[in-house]
Amino acid sequence: MSTNGSTNIFLPVSDLTDLLTRIFIRNGVSRDSAGILAANCAWCERDGSLSHGIFRMPGYVATLKSGWVDGCAKATTEIAGAAFLRVDAQNGFAQPAWQDSLPQVFKMVSEQGVAVVAIRNSHHFSALWPDLEPLADKGLIALSMVTGLACVAPYGGRRPVFGTNPIAFATPVADAHPMIFDFATSSISNGDLRIAAKSGHQIPPESGIDASGNLSADPSAILSGGALLPFGGHKGAAISLMVEILASGLTGGLFSSEVDFSSHPGAESPRTGQVIIAIDPQRGGNGAFERRVRQLIDTVRDAGQTRLPSDRRYRTRELALSNGIPLSQEQHEALLAMAG
Amino acid sequence: MSTNGSTNIFLPVSDLTDLLTRIFIRNGVSRDSAGILAANCAWCERDGSLSHGIFRMPGYVATLKSGWVDGCAKATTEIAGAAFLRVDAQNGFAQPAWQDSLPQVFKMVSEQGVAVVAIRNSHHFSALWPDLEPLADKGLIALSMVTGLACVAPYGGRRPVFGTNPIAFATPVADAHPMIFDFATSSISNGDLRIAAKSGHQIPPESGIDASGNLSADPSAILSGGALLPFGGHKGAAISLMVEILASGLTGGLFSSEVDFSSHPGAESPRTGQVIIAIDPQRGGNGAFERRVRQLIDTVRDAGQTRLPSDRRYRTRELALSNGIPLSQEQHEALLAMAG
Repeated sequence: MSTNGSTNIFLPVSDLTDLLTRIFIRNGVSRDSAGILAANCAWCERDGSLSHGIFRMPGYVATLKSGWVDGCAKATTEIAGAAFLRVDAQNGFAQPAWQDSLPQVFKMVSEQGVAVVAIRNSHHFSALWPDLEPLADKGLIALSMVTGLACVAPYGGRRPVFGTNPIAFATPVADAHPMIFDFATSSISNGDLRIAAKSGHQIPPESGIDASGNLSADPSAILSGGALLPFGGHKGAAISLMVEILASGLTGGLFSSEVDFSSHPGAESPRTGQVIIAIDPQRGGNGAFERRVRQLIDTVRDAGQTRLPSDRRYRTRELALSNGIPLSQEQHEALLAMAG
Repeated sequence: MSTNGSTNIFLPVSDLTDLLTRIFIRNGVSRDSAGILAANCAWCERDGSLSHGIFRMPGYVATLKSGWVDGCAKATTEIAGAAFLRVDAQNGFAQPAWQDSLPQVFKMVSEQGVAVVAIRNSHHFSALWPDLEPLADKGLIALSMVTGLACVAPYGGRRPVFGTNPIAFATPVADAHPMIFDFATSSISNGDLRIAAKSGHQIPPESGIDASGNLSADPSAILSGGALLPFGGHKGAAISLMVEILASGLTGGLFSSEVDFSSHPGAESPRTGQVIIAIDPQRGGNGAFERRVRQLIDTVRDAGQTRLPSDRRYRTRELALSNGIPLSQEQHEALLAMAG
C-alpha cells in the first residue's frame, strides 16, 4: 500500500474507522475487537503516525489469515493484588485486552493510587500512545512498554535478542493535550529500516551491524543476518533490556527472542507481552501537578526546544478533524478492496 | 581529594564506614543519618562507583557547613493510597528518608503488589543503585529517578533545564546478584565533565553546547554558560523530561531548574525529589520470574555483550570484601583530617 500517491480524498475519522472495521471483521475478528483495532489504526492515521496507520492493514490481514493470532480471543483478567491486574490476552491482540481492563484499572488507581497491568500472550502491532491517552485524559500518569520480534542486538553483541521494544510515557498537562512520548528503543524503527532497504538509502553507521557483527550503514546488510542496535549506546541498550524484563519477564509473556512464527507464513505481529503502570498524580501531595507540568514544559520551550513529544501529532489531528484524514485514491481503493 | 595517589592502604568496609560516620557526625548530621550516609558512600567506594564514593565527602561537608541541608532532618511519611507512600524529607538527605520508609514499602508491595514512593524536599548526592539493591535482594523489581541541578539542555535547546537526572532499574536474577543499571540521562556525567575541564581533555562534540548554543567538545565552554546535552538525542531527552515529571512533578519537589542555593555558598547537593516504584514480580503470573530473567541475561551474554550493567561493580565489591577497599595514603589522611 503506497503512501506516495497524490492526496485527493479526505475521509472523516468515523468513515475510516468503519471501513477498517469491515476489513477486520472480514478477516475473522470479532465485532468488538474489530471496532477497537480499527479505531486504533484510524487514530494513528489521523495523527500522522503513518507507520502504524493504514500502512499496517496488509500486515494485520496477513497475520490473521496465517492463523497466528486469534481475532476472536476474549482476554481473561485476574486481580493479583489490590494494585496489580494480570491479563491473559489468549493469543489475541493487546488492544482489546487492554480496553476490557480499563474500567478495572481506573478503579484500582482511584482506590490505591497506582495500578500495574501485566498483559501476556498478546499481539501488539500498533503505537503505544493510543493505549495511554485515555489514562492521561483522565488525569493519570502512565508508562507502557512492549516487546517485539528479535531484531536488535544487545550492547556490543553480534546477534539480535531484543525487539525494537518501544517505551511510552503520558502525563496530563494543564490547559493542553496530554504530553505523550512513544518511541522504539532501537536506533531506528524496523519500518524505517525496511523502507531504507527498499529505496537503497544508507542509514547512520551506528544504527546497525551486519552478519559479521561489524557496524553497517547498509540496511540490506542489517536485514540479511545482521541486527539493529539500541539507541543511545549502552544506556539505550539497558533500557531495551528493562523493556524485555518488564513487558515479557514480569508479565509472563515470551521474550522477543522466543517468538517463532515460522509455522505461520505471513504472520507479522509479535506474541509477547505488555506492561502498563498507571499512577494518580494527586497522591503525590501536589494538587497543582498539571499546572507544574505545564510550567516545566513552558520552561523547556523557552529554552529553545521547538517541538516536544506529541506536538506534531496533535497538530496533524486537528487538521484531520477539520478536513478529514488525507488518503490517496490508491490507498482508498486498496482499503475498499480489502473490505470486499 | 586526589584519587591518583599510590594505593597502599586496604580498609575493611566497616572501618571506612566508621570513619565516614565520624565525618558526618562532626558536621552536624544525626547519628542515625550519619550511619546511613556513611554506609552508602562506603558501598560506592567498595564497588568502584568512585564518583559517588569518598570523592564526594568534601562536597557533603561543604554542603552541610553551608546550612543548605539539614543533617538532623527527620522525614515524615504519609500513606496517600494503599500503594502510594508520600515522604517529606524535611530538607534532609534522601537516603535516611528512604531507609525510614523501607519497612512500609515492603509491607505495601507485599499487600498490593506494587508501591510508589514519592520523596520531596530531599537532597540526593549519591548513586541510585544503593537505594534499589535492598529491594532486589528481597525479590522485588524497582525503578528510581532523581532530579538534580540544571546543567542539561532540552533537545534542540540552548539553556540548561534538566539535571543529569539519573534513572536506575533493579531486578532479581536467579543464582546471581541483582542486575541493576543506574546512569545519568545526560550524555556524560557532570563529574566527568568537570574532570575533563580540569585535565584539559576534549569530550565528544555531541556531549554539550557552548553559551551560544553551538555543539562543543570543550568542557570549559560547556561549563561557562553552556550546557550538557541528554544522551541519545531526542529519545534520551524525552526520558530526562520524564525524570523531571516523575521525580519532581509527581513528588511535589522542585524541578532541577528551580534549585537555587546561591544564598548558601559551598552548597552542592540538589534539593529536589525522588521517585521509587517497587513491584512484586510474583504477581505477574510468572512464578519462574527470576529464572526467566536469568535466561534472558544468559541469552544477552551469549549474543556477545561481554559486560552487563553492575557486572563490574560486583567484581570490584568481591575484591574489596576480600582485601579491603583500596585507598591511597593521601586519601586516607584526608579522611582522617576531616574526621578530626
